[in-house]
Amino acid sequence: MTEKTALVVSAHSADFVWRAGGAIALHAEEGVDVTVVCLSFGERGESAKLWRQDGMTLETVKAERQKEAEAAAQALGVADIQFWDLGDYPIELDQDSLFRLADLCRQVRPAFMLTHSKEDPYNRDHPLVSQFAQEARIIAQAHGHNPGEAVLGAPPVMLFEPHQPEQCRWMPNTLLDITPVWEHKLAAIQCMAGQEHLWEYYTRVALQRGVQASRNSDKKIRYGEAYEAVFPHVVETLIPTEGRS
Amino acid sequence: MTEKTALVVSAHSADFVWRAGGAIALHAEEGVDVTVVCLSFGERGESAKLWRQDGMTLETVKAERQKEAEAAAQALGVADIQFWDLGDYPIELDQDSLFRLADLCRQVRPAFMLTHSKEDPYNRDHPLVSQFAQEARIIAQAHGHNPGEAVLGAPPVMLFEPHQPEQCRWMPNTLLDITPVWEHKLAAIQCMAGQEHLWEYYTRVALQRGVQASRNSDKKIRYGEAYEAVFPHVVETLIPTEGRS
Amino acid sequence: MTEKTALVVSAHSADFVWRAGGAIALHAEEGVDVTVVCLSFGERGESAKLWRQDGMTLETVKAERQKEAEAAAQALGVADIQFWDLGDYPIELDQDSLFRLADLCRQVRPAFMLTHSKEDPYNRDHPLVSQFAQEARIIAQAHGHNPGEAVLGAPPVMLFEPHQPEQCRWMPNTLLDITPVWEHKLAAIQCMAGQEHLWEYYTRVALQRGVQASRNSDKKIRYGEAYEAVFPHVVETLIPTEGRS
Amino acid sequence: MTEKTALVVSAHSADFVWRAGGAIALHAEEGVDVTVVCLSFGERGESAKLWRQDGMTLETVKAERQKEAEAAAQALGVADIQFWDLGDYPIELDQDSLFRLADLCRQVRPAFMLTHSKEDPYNRDHPLVSQFAQEARIIAQAHGHNPGEAVLGAPPVMLFEPHQPEQCRWMPNTLLDITPVWEHKLAAIQCMAGQEHLWEYYTRVALQRGVQASRNSDKKIRYGEAYEAVFPHVVETLIPTEGRS
Amino acid sequence: MTEKTALVVSAHSADFVWRAGGAIALHAEEGVDVTVVCLSFGERGESAKLWRQDGMTLETVKAERQKEAEAAAQALGVADIQFWDLGDYPIELDQDSLFRLADLCRQVRPAFMLTHSKEDPYNRDHPLVSQFAQEARIIAQAHGHNPGEAVLGAPPVMLFEPHQPEQCRWMPNTLLDITPVWEHKLAAIQCMAGQEHLWEYYTRVALQRGVQASRNSDKKIRYGEAYEAVFPHVVETLIPTEGRS
Amino acid sequence: MTEKTALVVSAHSADFVWRAGGAIALHAEEGVDVTVVCLSFGERGESAKLWRQDGMTLETVKAERQKEAEAAAQALGVADIQFWDLGDYPIELDQDSLFRLADLCRQVRPAFMLTHSKEDPYNRDHPLVSQFAQEARIIAQAHGHNPGEAVLGAPPVMLFEPHQPEQCRWMPNTLLDITPVWEHKLAAIQCMAGQEHLWEYYTRVALQRGVQASRNSDKKIRYGEAYEAVFPHVVETLIPTEGRS
Repeated sequence: MTEKTALVVSAHSADFVWRAGGAIALHAEEGVDVTVVCLSFGERGESAKLWRQDGMTLETVKAERQKEAEAAAQALGVADIQFWDLGDYPIELDQDSLFRLADLCRQVRPAFMLTHSKEDPYNRDHPLVSQFAQEARIIAQAHGHNPGEAVLGAPPVMLFEPHQPEQCRWMPNTLLDITPVWEHKLAAIQCMAGQEHLWEYYTRVALQRGVQASRNSDKKIRYGEAYEAVFPHVVETLIPTEGRS
Repeated sequence: MTEKTALVVSAHSADFVWRAGGAIALHAEEGVDVTVVCLSFGERGESAKLWRQDGMTLETVKAERQKEAEAAAQALGVADIQFWDLGDYPIELDQDSLFRLADLCRQVRPAFMLTHSKEDPYNRDHPLVSQFAQEARIIAQAHGHNPGEAVLGAPPVMLFEPHQPEQCRWMPNTLLDITPVWEHKLAAIQCMAGQEHLWEYYTRVALQRGVQASRNSDKKIRYGEAYEAVFPHVVETLIPTEGRS
Repeated sequence: MTEKTALVVSAHSADFVWRAGGAIALHAEEGVDVTVVCLSFGERGESAKLWRQDGMTLETVKAERQKEAEAAAQALGVADIQFWDLGDYPIELDQDSLFRLADLCRQVRPAFMLTHSKEDPYNRDHPLVSQFAQEARIIAQAHGHNPGEAVLGAPPVMLFEPHQPEQCRWMPNTLLDITPVWEHKLAAIQCMAGQEHLWEYYTRVALQRGVQASRNSDKKIRYGEAYEAVFPHVVETLIPTEGRS
Repeated sequence: MTEKTALVVSAHSADFVWRAGGAIALHAEEGVDVTVVCLSFGERGESAKLWRQDGMTLETVKAERQKEAEAAAQALGVADIQFWDLGDYPIELDQDSLFRLADLCRQVRPAFMLTHSKEDPYNRDHPLVSQFAQEARIIAQAHGHNPGEAVLGAPPVMLFEPHQPEQCRWMPNTLLDITPVWEHKLAAIQCMAGQEHLWEYYTRVALQRGVQASRNSDKKIRYGEAYEAVFPHVVETLIPTEGRS
Repeated sequence: MTEKTALVVSAHSADFVWRAGGAIALHAEEGVDVTVVCLSFGERGESAKLWRQDGMTLETVKAERQKEAEAAAQALGVADIQFWDLGDYPIELDQDSLFRLADLCRQVRPAFMLTHSKEDPYNRDHPLVSQFAQEARIIAQAHGHNPGEAVLGAPPVMLFEPHQPEQCRWMPNTLLDITPVWEHKLAAIQCMAGQEHLWEYYTRVALQRGVQASRNSDKKIRYGEAYEAVFPHVVETLIPTEGRS
Repeated sequence: MTEKTALVVSAHSADFVWRAGGAIALHAEEGVDVTVVCLSFGERGESAKLWRQDGMTLETVKAERQKEAEAAAQALGVADIQFWDLGDYPIELDQDSLFRLADLCRQVRPAFMLTHSKEDPYNRDHPLVSQFAQEARIIAQAHGHNPGEAVLGAPPVMLFEPHQPEQCRWMPNTLLDITPVWEHKLAAIQCMAGQEHLWEYYTRVALQRGVQASRNSDKKIRYGEAYEAVFPHVVETLIPTEGRS
């Protein structure tokens, strides 16, 4: 059997932690090779605390953000984390980067992809990255792109939770039980020194999604992560999976 | 392990065939006990061909419809089919029937439930039954309903495909591979002598959903059925299931 | 050729004037027999001015409302106006009335039907009547309803404009040029002595819809009425009709 | 100046606490007379913990639920709490109750009304009550209802937060700062002994809505409640209010 | 009378066949001059079968695709087919092309325009082209674009059917009877040697839309094409057209 | 107390008059410094009447449009009006302009911002500008944009009324009473000599929104303007403001 892989496309270097840390740790534990691409560091728009320090420069902010993200990735068991430094607020997503991501899709051949919600009135980079990641996946499916290479199949794309979900018209239609790896996600969250105000916020998100996951199943689930599946689930049974024993 | 069960709530006595015949046959083959409730026979609104015969009466129409449905149920491997004779166009869904269905939910304890779409501008009975089935499920979850009985858990509710899907604002977010049991579904379809014009229509639906299921996965799927899940999927992995070997 | 007919289902006795007066007059002029059913007089909820008079009684309000509606119907060229006196705020739509309306659908055999919007947070009777009229049409299509009678075909249902269109999630996808009959609609509007405050309001509505109809075509249109078609238009050409010469 | 009042229509006897406790306490502190109507006790569907006790009866459950709700109402400073005992799962909302609520609307003359969301796939009583409360308000506006009485004006209707907001298609377009009265809300929550599992859940909801309220303003807000306004806000300025000093 | 024209804007060189072949043939037969613009050949993303051949090059794929499209156009009676070779996956829609299309709109002066759906999660080029075609039409309406030229009026824009209609949030609100020209459409479909797997798929689409068109009218219709009208229909009557004799 | 300010981002040089003239005049009268940015003159797409004059040039059209807009701004009491001359049909919104607008946001520090609707099938520039204005606001909130400058807070963004509101999926959730300044808005409207056909249209819009504002409150309001708030209202009370005395 070939080894399973997954690909996470994160606009800024902390998004994968808050929004997909549980999924990453869960699958990593099960032997899935998870690749995380941080398209930017969030150096301009998501580093308020760093900028409040004296003498801060863009390069220092980026370096700090990278360090935090790498530590978090390690806590989650990420196999490969890449920093593409495409800028933020606004992020610059040109065609070279698009092809680079398409090529990465082919190289990784993920069993599933995670990225941002389609709308976000608080953050312009997030929906741009969502569109960009989905477009790269489509290009990777095209036989005429680098002809001769094996094309990508049809991995599901799951959109992770934005900061204010209802305002983003994001609909959580998939709830993932992340209880077994919560400690890893919490450890990763605590690597993000620059955004300490979000630690408790996203801990509460995990608890709320856990309660909701329990309500939508017959399982005891303490921590959850919610996703919006872009495409229909293709299934061979309508019977939900049993709970973990 | 306890045996698995499923519950299908069908407004008229043929709906379960066109719309859920594949799911029924598939799970029946895997040992699931499927109960089908036909709330009415569709004797007034869905029996045009019978009414074109001379001297037809309501009772004869009902009897013919029941006979057809029983034959179809047998072809699909249904464990129990019930006819509640609640009338159609309009269907009469009173509180006694509601409690009766709630009690059936508790008795069957289905792993999943199937019923109609939430809207249908062509058919008023369908959305009424959808609402009714969902309400019965909720009552079956209430500890104060027949206190002392074991309450129902949270089985998923999947809404099957209406005749004109887009006009019903129905969104197929789950595609079920029914290729292994297509012959059973076709046999069941062919039991519905009174609605022969629909045989080809729903055969084409199965082929289209099959193509779409293939496109949304990396599997070869020839026949499909589409469903709209009412509630979020609660999952322990984001990796899609492998195809059948 | 059989004569064309149309059926307008109006919750209260003035709705058909404000919302469909143009369509009625236009088709009446072209020889269409238009039947208007006023399910109630709007005696409780839409007769504020009458109730401000001393010694007013429910019966007097109804009589006044009927007189106004009859005068308006005459101004519009209505072939038949019926008052079913089903009460308002809330309207009482029982099964007898449902079958009565289904039977009227069969008797009239309308080329099209007009009724209220599907939602209206300001007026509960309106969406109830919309649902009711659509259900009656469906029953009239059922072969088992009064077997032996000719069943109804599939006349389009057009939902006329509510008072605050956006709040009702009503989408005007059909704009009717009522310029040739505007004077008739205005005359009908002016029969509604009890709701004088609405005369100018609905005159402005007609002017706005006229401007919009011009913008969406290459015609000069001064007065318009807007409708939301419930069902797809079935057409034999995509070329829009020419303007009137 | 006349005294201000508010009216809260709660399906079950605990809903007003979780969903509107902050708004109630906040306005009560400012001298608003708040009336709460509990249409049922939630005795069948929302009293699992009580039913797990030996020898429990429907009457005892109701009595316990009433006691808890009265204690919570006192903690919040409710002026009047009423229990209409209309049953639950399903709630029975007949025309007598509708007129009773319309009459209460006229008697209270609320500056605003609070009630449930329009949809809730987990709870059928909630959307029924939302519809019912809105309909009662509309009847209270009708001049022909109890002619001679002063009719109701147009108080805003705000829909409070359901348990799983996204699944209910509920859109929080109004965020209320309840920081000053959080201790009162928490005290009221802790009166609900039968639903202890919800204490932390709704504490987290208040914290999340507080963070979001801060993000959508330039104020420091720790605890919030979210509402969906049914009708447009009518305003005399677009400048947001200043924060509390 | 001036001759009628139509304009079809197709992202890839086969889209006009599957999605609008019936409309093209139907209007061509009635003397309408139909211009088809294929913005790209779909050489990278929609030519899998060609790429599976040994030694295939981009230029050969394009040439093959053009040959097929020209043959299909001839089968449909297209007056003018243009290949703009703008690339695909992703298509490159720059401002020069935008003005070129605006100028073509003015030159053709179409009675209606056909193009892609507004969303398509499977195909990024399709919604880009939809936006592009609509923008070109708007520019062609601007008096300051090439001042002195006659500006474009307001031709309807109809969005043709995407491959997975519900997933594209595409709403078929117009159903066109293409029965009289089905053989032409089928012949055109069979010109597309590179996508043989789609022949049956789109034959079934035509049959399903035909059944639906019959259901939404009182006509016998065997083959249909579905469209989403972007703008309201502006009409002079609400009476649907009679069936073909 | 610091002085209040507001920022209006108008695609073309007349949009701020039709769509936000009342809000501008109202706040200006109350001492708010209103800055209006006209990103283009609408010289190509919204100056039909000027282009019908002999010998007209782009420069003359721009000059005329600027003159009209300046006169209107004066009538409304605008503190600062800027013309950025970015072209129209299509407007060119590059990154320099984006940063320029972000910097203006910081300089003005508006209490609220007004701009276009998110969709408009009749006008491509409008939704582009809406997106652009919202993105500029987000950049102005970023600590890393021009570090050291005070960042922008979270001013509400209100989307003003497009020409055909329902077709733009624009939802008026805020109604502003502009009765006190109607004469100013009318004077400003009458400065727009080039679009005289719109004077009556937008006068009627103001009257309709006035009636609706009255219906949604207990106030007498003759003229209104409608807005769609992008973000939730953050409030300290749910009691609507009293009417003007």
